[in-house]
Amino acid sequence: MTVTRPPPYEWRVYPKSFPRNQWYVAGHAQDFGRTLLSRWILGDPICFYRRVDGTPVALTDRCVHRQMPLTLGKLTGDSVECGYHGIVYGPDGQATKVPSQNPVPPNCRVHRYPVRDRGGLLWIWLGDPDKADESMIPVHPWLDSPDWAIVRGTLHMNARAQLLNENLLDLTHVSFLHADSIGTNEVAETPATTEVRGDTVFVTRPMPSVLCPPLFEKVMGLSGMIDRESVAEYTAPGFHISHVLAKPAGAASDDPRACRHKAVHCVTPETETSAHYFWLIARDYHVDDEAVSQIWQEGTPGVLMQDVDAVEAIERVIAPYEPDYPFEINLRADNGALRARRIIERMIAAEQAG
Amino acid sequence: MTVTRPPPYEWRVYPKSFPRNQWYVAGHAQDFGRTLLSRWILGDPICFYRRVDGTPVALTDRCVHRQMPLTLGKLTGDSVECGYHGIVYGPDGQATKVPSQNPVPPNCRVHRYPVRDRGGLLWIWLGDPDKADESMIPVHPWLDSPDWAIVRGTLHMNARAQLLNENLLDLTHVSFLHADSIGTNEVAETPATTEVRGDTVFVTRPMPSVLCPPLFEKVMGLSGMIDRESVAEYTAPGFHISHVLAKPAGAASDDPRACRHKAVHCVTPETETSAHYFWLIARDYHVDDEAVSQIWQEGTPGVLMQDVDAVEAIERVIAPYEPDYPFEINLRADNGALRARRIIERMIAAEQAG
Amino acid sequence: MTVTRPPPYEWRVYPKSFPRNQWYVAGHAQDFGRTLLSRWILGDPICFYRRVDGTPVALTDRCVHRQMPLTLGKLTGDSVECGYHGIVYGPDGQATKVPSQNPVPPNCRVHRYPVRDRGGLLWIWLGDPDKADESMIPVHPWLDSPDWAIVRGTLHMNARAQLLNENLLDLTHVSFLHADSIGTNEVAETPATTEVRGDTVFVTRPMPSVLCPPLFEKVMGLSGMIDRESVAEYTAPGFHISHVLAKPAGAASDDPRACRHKAVHCVTPETETSAHYFWLIARDYHVDDEAVSQIWQEGTPGVLMQDVDAVEAIERVIAPYEPDYPFEINLRADNGALRARRIIERMIAAEQAG
Repeated sequence: MTVTRPPPYEWRVYPKSFPRNQWYVAGHAQDFGRTLLSRWILGDPICFYRRVDGTPVALTDRCVHRQMPLTLGKLTGDSVECGYHGIVYGPDGQATKVPSQNPVPPNCRVHRYPVRDRGGLLWIWLGDPDKADESMIPVHPWLDSPDWAIVRGTLHMNARAQLLNENLLDLTHVSFLHADSIGTNEVAETPATTEVRGDTVFVTRPMPSVLCPPLFEKVMGLSGMIDRESVAEYTAPGFHISHVLAKPAGAASDDPRACRHKAVHCVTPETETSAHYFWLIARDYHVDDEAVSQIWQEGTPGVLMQDVDAVEAIERVIAPYEPDYPFEINLRADNGALRARRIIERMIAAEQAG
Repeated sequence: MTVTRPPPYEWRVYPKSFPRNQWYVAGHAQDFGRTLLSRWILGDPICFYRRVDGTPVALTDRCVHRQMPLTLGKLTGDSVECGYHGIVYGPDGQATKVPSQNPVPPNCRVHRYPVRDRGGLLWIWLGDPDKADESMIPVHPWLDSPDWAIVRGTLHMNARAQLLNENLLDLTHVSFLHADSIGTNEVAETPATTEVRGDTVFVTRPMPSVLCPPLFEKVMGLSGMIDRESVAEYTAPGFHISHVLAKPAGAASDDPRACRHKAVHCVTPETETSAHYFWLIARDYHVDDEAVSQIWQEGTPGVLMQDVDAVEAIERVIAPYEPDYPFEINLRADNGALRARRIIERMIAAEQAG
Repeated sequence: MTVTRPPPYEWRVYPKSFPRNQWYVAGHAQDFGRTLLSRWILGDPICFYRRVDGTPVALTDRCVHRQMPLTLGKLTGDSVECGYHGIVYGPDGQATKVPSQNPVPPNCRVHRYPVRDRGGLLWIWLGDPDKADESMIPVHPWLDSPDWAIVRGTLHMNARAQLLNENLLDLTHVSFLHADSIGTNEVAETPATTEVRGDTVFVTRPMPSVLCPPLFEKVMGLSGMIDRESVAEYTAPGFHISHVLAKPAGAASDDPRACRHKAVHCVTPETETSAHYFWLIARDYHVDDEAVSQIWQEGTPGVLMQDVDAVEAIERVIAPYEPDYPFEINLRADNGALRARRIIERMIAAEQAG
């Protein structure tokens, strides 16, 4: 998967290819440390580690001499020694030592990807490093505020990333795919409002006076009729927040019983037909209650795996159609997903235009 | 696999592609009931079930909205509810409910395949429904006659269907591949007569006064020298009957000791390089003898697996040649198989001509 | 993989395709006997066995009638009977019996590959049999001399053969990949001399007065400072000898304490991205010492598997680039490998020119 290769089929219908001049989530900040970690992103093998001072580093995970994965080598100080012929690369990707040759050839270097720690996540820029603009990384204070409690985890899926992006933008699926946990009929039956600001899509679904779902009873302590609001916020190309607000029916927004949580879903293409799925749940209620944290920590993967199972099943039925895509129809509920597709289209077109 | 895609290589030599405007066996009638069953046929994922009144239904196993396999949803009455966003499809393939949208868009429908119960098998038409002609389904009264006892089963093979079609049309293999069960030298050494009537090929091999094979001793109660006759009847594209007659040498055809059985082999392409293999053995002797039924029920899969093993081994040695096919020579014993290839060629050509 | 198919990418950079009018090692002579053995070489399935008198035979492992692998049949005397329809092939590849047909059609034959026993190895010629020239097989008297002790084994690798050929021609990897066994820093730091004679490349690396590596202490009984010399000899397309000489530092070459061994590596492409790896260690010291033989027999696979693991890791990171190859740079230590590539290029070009 590269910017220059033409997309393998009509990606305007269903993009598998992704823009590269964008920030993607490479993982939770805590995943990266003083051990070499290999992770493929947008078809690139990448070697991740942290320098002694904690600064994150991302290099192409392929020695430029004979293509050995650097992650099979050794981390020494801030540098990586290739396990094949001992070439040492500094954190800027430039070789500093070639055991069999002196001086080091200047073109003995690997690509260094811009990476940034932001809000407990590590962000990576897959495209032209000169265009990497930190201010494009979405900022959300609650991602690392002491007033919010956070649980997090990582899943993997054998399906193109866009299937999950669109899953998250049409929450009418909650009533059916998650009928046994967070789903209630109201979700599918409540019309949603879609709004686009820049590269961000908002799908808002207010559900006043609905029955409190069992999960909310357990974690929030609410019961009976509640006012529930769900806002899906998608920042292209792969960062989703489900903003959830629940309070006793008729109570004011600043009622002390009002509970807010944010379900963050980071969908990062691994290859054209597989993706990393980094998630976290941040909440502003019962922040110090370990039992509530445990419910979210242990219960969330099961719910999200229902989505992963669905998109993997879909990937299996559409894969034989490559390079075509089976005919499909759109519903009004797909408005958010369709707007999201157009943003990705625009991003790719802008890159191809140069 | 579609009619319109040009075949990937010279299929006249060895057809992998198959005609679609034909009836194929989708399975034993008893396989289908009030549970959603997914089965791929000719490259199409298909969702099978029976209506409350028992009528069989076959729909594309892919929701037209977001491609979710319908078999992961729920059967409710005569309808299927998609497990993703809750769209309900009636047995004609038309959506009757879209939870997030009212009225239902008229193009919210999936393909309904014509299906028919005939002789204990379920038949499916993969092509243009308007051309589905029930009278083309082969009729054989003994398939559901109380005077015949039947055992049946299902195998799967990772090899192109045509390899098994041709296996069944050149029974000289019986002497070698099945040397330890039904094979005797006489089969290979007896010249066969080939006759074509319409889309059906008959290969007749009379073996007067041959030694009774061990299996026939056990199930028929014959021994010593017998008159044995085997007629392979192939109805294109994938329905085979091995008509077997055995009687004491010199006895008349209507001698009460004469035993007849029919080994039915239904070869249905799953993908271009895999197939379903539905089989049954119908016999007119010892019809109520459970011990004889048990011998056929338990012994047949082992014999047929020798054929499956052979065609899978062949698939593995020819697969690297794609899109070509390795050179091969034909023998006189291949006459039936070659006539069968020509029928399939003619069927495909007729479809492509429109 | 055939000579006539154009190579799938710029093989001058990194040949996956190989010349066919060459001798390749098919295995250790002892691998072949009175049992049918299937082995794929350069993309061809081959059926190996020995005649009653021990002469080796190699036939295409695919019956010319219906492509059944002959190795699933039976060896009877000097002939093979196909397990499908009983065709019997003599050791020259010509069918001598077709059970269903008399006389045997003259074109009922499979390809017979020229094979030769030489030095405990079986050599096979994959190209035009008329061009098979025995004198092209490399001759090394110590391969079957009673004055040398030999241990041997076989590995398999899921990587293109050329990756291992080049591994063996740049022994600077020994210091890093085999740091825990035979590697010492001197190997990488000692400049090597490359010389080409005909289709053979020699890379010589003298290491006077270096510390005896632990393995050499155990098998040779040397210790302290030694003079070590390593000569990598590569005979295209896939036969490598690492000539190793070790003696006490300053001793003469004919000093009785001098120890010589030859590590022979035979790299035979199986498919375009997998290979057989036949190895042997021949030594002229402690020839009758079973304990030393055991050290080599049991210890060698572990060292060689480090190379196999490396080239398989490389194959995985370059495979997604097909049909391209990722950019790589060459070092002075790659001189031998680059000369080897040019020999293979020349061989392929000569074949294509006719």
